[in-house]
Amino acid sequence: MKEEDKEQVGLEKFLNSVVIVSAKDGRKFRGRLTQYDEYMNLVLKDVEEFSGEEQAVKHKLVLIKGGNVSAIST
Amino acid sequence: MKEEDKEQVGLEKFLNSVVIVSAKDGRKFRGRLTQYDEYMNLVLKDVEEFSGEEQAVKHKLVLIKGGNVSAIST
Amino acid sequence: MKEEDKEQVGLEKFLNSVVIVSAKDGRKFRGRLTQYDEYMNLVLKDVEEFSGEEQAVKHKLVLIKGGNVSAIST
Amino acid sequence: MKEEDKEQVGLEKFLNSVVIVSAKDGRKFRGRLTQYDEYMNLVLKDVEEFSGEEQAVKHKLVLIKGGNVSAIST
Amino acid sequence: MKEEDKEQVGLEKFLNSVVIVSAKDGRKFRGRLTQYDEYMNLVLKDVEEFSGEEQAVKHKLVLIKGGNVSAIST
Amino acid sequence: MKEEDKEQVGLEKFLNSVVIVSAKDGRKFRGRLTQYDEYMNLVLKDVEEFSGEEQAVKHKLVLIKGGNVSAIST
Amino acid sequence: MKEEDKEQVGLEKFLNSVVIVSAKDGRKFRGRLTQYDEYMNLVLKDVEEFSGEEQAVKHKLVLIKGGNVSAIST
Repeated sequence: MKEEDKEQVGLEKFLNSVVIVSAKDGRKFRGRLTQYDEYMNLVLKDVEEFSGEEQAVKHKLVLIKGGNVSAIST
Repeated sequence: MKEEDKEQVGLEKFLNSVVIVSAKDGRKFRGRLTQYDEYMNLVLKDVEEFSGEEQAVKHKLVLIKGGNVSAIST
Repeated sequence: MKEEDKEQVGLEKFLNSVVIVSAKDGRKFRGRLTQYDEYMNLVLKDVEEFSGEEQAVKHKLVLIKGGNVSAIST
Repeated sequence: MKEEDKEQVGLEKFLNSVVIVSAKDGRKFRGRLTQYDEYMNLVLKDVEEFSGEEQAVKHKLVLIKGGNVSAIST
Repeated sequence: MKEEDKEQVGLEKFLNSVVIVSAKDGRKFRGRLTQYDEYMNLVLKDVEEFSGEEQAVKHKLVLIKGGNVSAIST
Repeated sequence: MKEEDKEQVGLEKFLNSVVIVSAKDGRKFRGRLTQYDEYMNLVLKDVEEFSGEEQAVKHKLVLIKGGNVSAIST
Repeated sequence: MKEEDKEQVGLEKFLNSVVIVSAKDGRKFRGRLTQYDEYMNLVLKDVEEFSGEEQAVKHKLVLIKGGNVSAIST
């Protein structure tokens, strides 16, 4: 295994892209990732929030706590 | 990735604004963010608390423990 | 953001007041906050404990572990 | 706020008294608190354990892990 | 409060005795405690495992992770 | 026990293989493991996500938080 | 209590044996323990996975995260 494989998995490849964040509380958020930190706290802009079958709720800005993040996908 | 992207995600942009806090216990709180700290403990003023379909409960002051915060939105 | 905003959110403003503590286990406790510490362990005096629709249970003294505290309100 | 308010909340006032311990797993234990430590691990003697509507189960000695303690009351 | 009260609550008094371990996952284990450590990882010998109303399952040796331990009783 | 047995369990043997990741939130992800770190944060490429009986959802890239990983299998 | 009793509970006695691992997520894994580390991350070979009443699923290799381990038995 090469040493560079062991660097912390980063979010650089997701920055300024539209991502889907799956949260532990069952909600999903789709928006542009504008900021993050080492705890995986995330700031999304122009966000749609999905919860079960309900219609999406829109937010200008959402901060998702790292401890509430399950997965991030594109 | 530029270094400033890795600063801790902060709540400055939410301070003194009316925010909606989603808590892990399923409740939502809408109020003015008047104080916070590095653990994301939050103090809200003039708060409405929502829980399921029940009518909002009003509080003058609410301290929400950081460990109970899932997301903060505007 | 001014430096004093980043001090740890404290419970001074709640000390010796009657507060409502929402616990993670679903219970609520209303009583006078007589002591607390940095872990948000709380000691309440002359306490009423509410759980769902059941009638309040009274306690002379309750220590609530910080890890079980969700929110504190007035 | 005076400095002595910020000392860790202690269990001295409960030592050698009969207390009710509410555990995270939903059980309650009533017994005499004979030992505790900084993690809030508790040792109770001559204990009755309650769980829902079932009849109390008796134990000579119970060690309750601090992480399983929600609240302690008299 | 005397200083010796604040020593960590230990399992010496349970060593080599038959104990009942209540686990967070709802199971109970009855067996002889043959080893433990500071994380409250436990090793039981000649163990019966109970889960709800099902019949006991027998094990020669069970290691229970400290994080899964709720309470230990005699 | 030989000393090499106590090295941290690593994911080298899974790197660049197609793996199935079981997540705490009940979902399973099948994809090629392209990156990981000491927290077991994982990056999968060309991913199928399974959740209960629903049809698989496809993702180009998924980052799964280490705290959300239960098990990895081949 | 003798000092050697307080060494960390180890998995040496389980190494290269067929064990049953009970996971927090409700699944059980039966396989040969080929590697482990101080976080109780486990690697099992030739594994059968059981979940409720469903038929066993077979895996060549499974890594179970320590945080997902409840108990290990023989």
